[in-house]
Amino acid sequence: MNIDLKNTIVAPATGSGGAISVIRLSGSDSLRIVNEIFKAKAKEGLTNSEGFSIFYGDICDGDEIIDDVLVSVFRAPESYTGEDSVEISCHASSYIQNKILQLLVDHGASPARPGEFTQRAFLNGKMDLTQAEAVADVINSETESAHRLAMQQMRGAYSKEINELREKMLHFASMIELELDFGEEDVKFADRNELRSMVEEIKNYTGSLRDSFKYGNAIKKGVPVAIVGKPNVGKSTLLNALLKDDKAIVSEIPGTTRDVIEDTIILEGVLFRFIDTAGLRESADIIENLGIRKTYQKIEQADIVMLLAEAEDGAKSINESFTEISKQIKNTAKTLLLIVNKTDLVAEEKRKELKDSLECPQNNCIFISATEGTGIEDLVTKLTEQIKNSIPASQQLVVTNLRHYEALKECSESLERVLNGLDEGLPEDLVVIDLRQAIHYLGEITGEISTEEILGNIFKNFCIGK
Amino acid sequence: MNIDLKNTIVAPATGSGGAISVIRLSGSDSLRIVNEIFKAKAKEGLTNSEGFSIFYGDICDGDEIIDDVLVSVFRAPESYTGEDSVEISCHASSYIQNKILQLLVDHGASPARPGEFTQRAFLNGKMDLTQAEAVADVINSETESAHRLAMQQMRGAYSKEINELREKMLHFASMIELELDFGEEDVKFADRNELRSMVEEIKNYTGSLRDSFKYGNAIKKGVPVAIVGKPNVGKSTLLNALLKDDKAIVSEIPGTTRDVIEDTIILEGVLFRFIDTAGLRESADIIENLGIRKTYQKIEQADIVMLLAEAEDGAKSINESFTEISKQIKNTAKTLLLIVNKTDLVAEEKRKELKDSLECPQNNCIFISATEGTGIEDLVTKLTEQIKNSIPASQQLVVTNLRHYEALKECSESLERVLNGLDEGLPEDLVVIDLRQAIHYLGEITGEISTEEILGNIFKNFCIGK
Repeated sequence: MNIDLKNTIVAPATGSGGAISVIRLSGSDSLRIVNEIFKAKAKEGLTNSEGFSIFYGDICDGDEIIDDVLVSVFRAPESYTGEDSVEISCHASSYIQNKILQLLVDHGASPARPGEFTQRAFLNGKMDLTQAEAVADVINSETESAHRLAMQQMRGAYSKEINELREKMLHFASMIELELDFGEEDVKFADRNELRSMVEEIKNYTGSLRDSFKYGNAIKKGVPVAIVGKPNVGKSTLLNALLKDDKAIVSEIPGTTRDVIEDTIILEGVLFRFIDTAGLRESADIIENLGIRKTYQKIEQADIVMLLAEAEDGAKSINESFTEISKQIKNTAKTLLLIVNKTDLVAEEKRKELKDSLECPQNNCIFISATEGTGIEDLVTKLTEQIKNSIPASQQLVVTNLRHYEALKECSESLERVLNGLDEGLPEDLVVIDLRQAIHYLGEITGEISTEEILGNIFKNFCIGK
Repeated sequence: MNIDLKNTIVAPATGSGGAISVIRLSGSDSLRIVNEIFKAKAKEGLTNSEGFSIFYGDICDGDEIIDDVLVSVFRAPESYTGEDSVEISCHASSYIQNKILQLLVDHGASPARPGEFTQRAFLNGKMDLTQAEAVADVINSETESAHRLAMQQMRGAYSKEINELREKMLHFASMIELELDFGEEDVKFADRNELRSMVEEIKNYTGSLRDSFKYGNAIKKGVPVAIVGKPNVGKSTLLNALLKDDKAIVSEIPGTTRDVIEDTIILEGVLFRFIDTAGLRESADIIENLGIRKTYQKIEQADIVMLLAEAEDGAKSINESFTEISKQIKNTAKTLLLIVNKTDLVAEEKRKELKDSLECPQNNCIFISATEGTGIEDLVTKLTEQIKNSIPASQQLVVTNLRHYEALKECSESLERVLNGLDEGLPEDLVVIDLRQAIHYLGEITGEISTEEILGNIFKNFCIGK
């Protein structure tokens, strides 16, 4: 993964199909290379051109015209990568695209590795690591909420906060280290109590950031929801009612494997993944016949469990099921919603009576009729609320990246050790080791500290051309 | 299909996936509309900007930043459509793309119909109809040869020739009409013989253009080839040997339906379609067991028929098969190649003897061993030669478009009637009707004469965004 910034790299930047394709180059030879195969109309050659200008002309292989194209020129450092860059906009024919790529390589460009443009932007100081990672998230974001988090991170709000945190910790560490240097003179720069309370504050903040990953990951990957209940209680009808909801956008996730059939729906900008619904939509409740073990597996994977019962079952039976599942998810952060279906089949009065005798908290109980579509809107509101309320309103930043989550976890643990050390009256030189460790982990997030391995792991999952 | 040029249209111009997406607008409000949702960094607003310039900034929905983008500005008439145009280059997320499209529509843009950008280019006089049609061909061209024909047409070489032809005919028509005006004075401007010989020349040229469609269509759609022969003669091995040839590129045609499995190979820049090879590649010769009727159907669809025999069959048996198929394709333009396989199983001497006793013209007979790969290169050369020699070297232009073919056919027929009329001494006013008819058909090709129906048919098959 050694990056040679002296190379000029090239890759297609757009997907397949469409009317036009864009080929992108970056590196000090970009203009020279393109100029060798490009005959501009009306304007002079590219090599002395200013940035942010467009040329119209022909890409030629010797005398043969391959295509008429638009060439956009960007000059270092005012480009995505911070290097001289060129974008060639050609007709979207695979023949033309391959031919132009081949000509560019023949004239000295190297095919770019996945993410290499963004990696160069990082190495040239155009963005930090969290921003670089957010670029991939922005491209992959399917929903409003995922897009919003990714954009926030790409624009640096996230790394700003991490850097401030790191600065504070660096300040403490240097104070302690200064003390150590003057140790024999017994100078005490840092007030112990102040130090302790500030480390605690930082630790709490780091912890809440770390915990926001659960939310952030759900937003990014989709919130896993299980629908459970007895056979014929209407699970497939409920799922279809949700899928048909006006606000629902049935999502197509390219990466979903064919083995695991998951229904995904975007409700009010949040992606929900309905677990193991393979049987549900085909015929009613095939899955359920596989028994209670299967149900437990579904609950295990879910963040939200929807227990579906029917009004005619009566309070006793419903309360039994509810208690059973409540027990199973005790001590987890899962949300249990009780959905009472087929309310159209019981009289108004009985419905009221039932409502009063249910042991489920009123808030988490919704009466619906999946066939008639009543109550579905309430359910949608309830589902999206679960997500929107799952982090405190004061929490501005959300972690969406497993790598950051792991670094924050390590950072929190190091800070915990710092606190314990202070409490136990450990010598400063031992306490500062843990503090330096915590600083190190924060630095890994933004890329202040990076290794080839970290970089390799981050960029290998990018698409080519970004 | 009424086109309202006052609208400003918008559509995605790139395919799905990739790192960036391009959204394209055209129309007098393009800059005003984009400016309303775009906050440029560093530079002033778009509305007064020059063409061929690029702006970097944010697309915003109110206060929310949707994406940071590059905006390229083109001013009428120096744009693809001849109108003010804008291209927005954003991150390739479907969420972002849809959101930006929606914002643009909210601010007054109309979603473009397929081909509407190119149709506007035609209506604004930026290109004629043959060039507009060639744009779609350029985008869809998969092979070097198809690309070359499409480029030639897009750049106007084709319409130049058609227009010259039309000019000549217009000249004659006006001479004759002038005569008619002065008819009573018995003035004869046009020399009868000269007129006749020039109409004949034009008719011959029109005819050769018309006939080139067979070649042009094969280049564009692929040359249909049938492999026929007795069971176990090695048809599947031959096909695999061709597919594995160094020069072969196994093509992926997106439009190919799953029902019709055709093996397509690009050999030396020409696309070959092997007909009905569904059974061939799986196990040997399943298809052949379906009998002689199936074989005849395959031959019917093919331009090139490869009769595969094996050396051990001997001259008598091979000649019988050859004669049978020769008879079937008599009076067609199909090429019959005799391929003698399994030459590795017979001695050199016997091979020579066999060669001398075959009734197939030496030129169209190739000895191969599909398993050992010998002779495959000769076969590839022979196949590509068939195409390259199928039109005279002097023929500069090739018709690739069914619409042009039909117009040229009608034109030829009108000219034939002109010649007959002259021979039969028909009055000038009758002869000139046919001549005007011929001129009309040529005008339809380039779009000098066009109807909404013609335009509708042409552009409906374009992709969105072109």
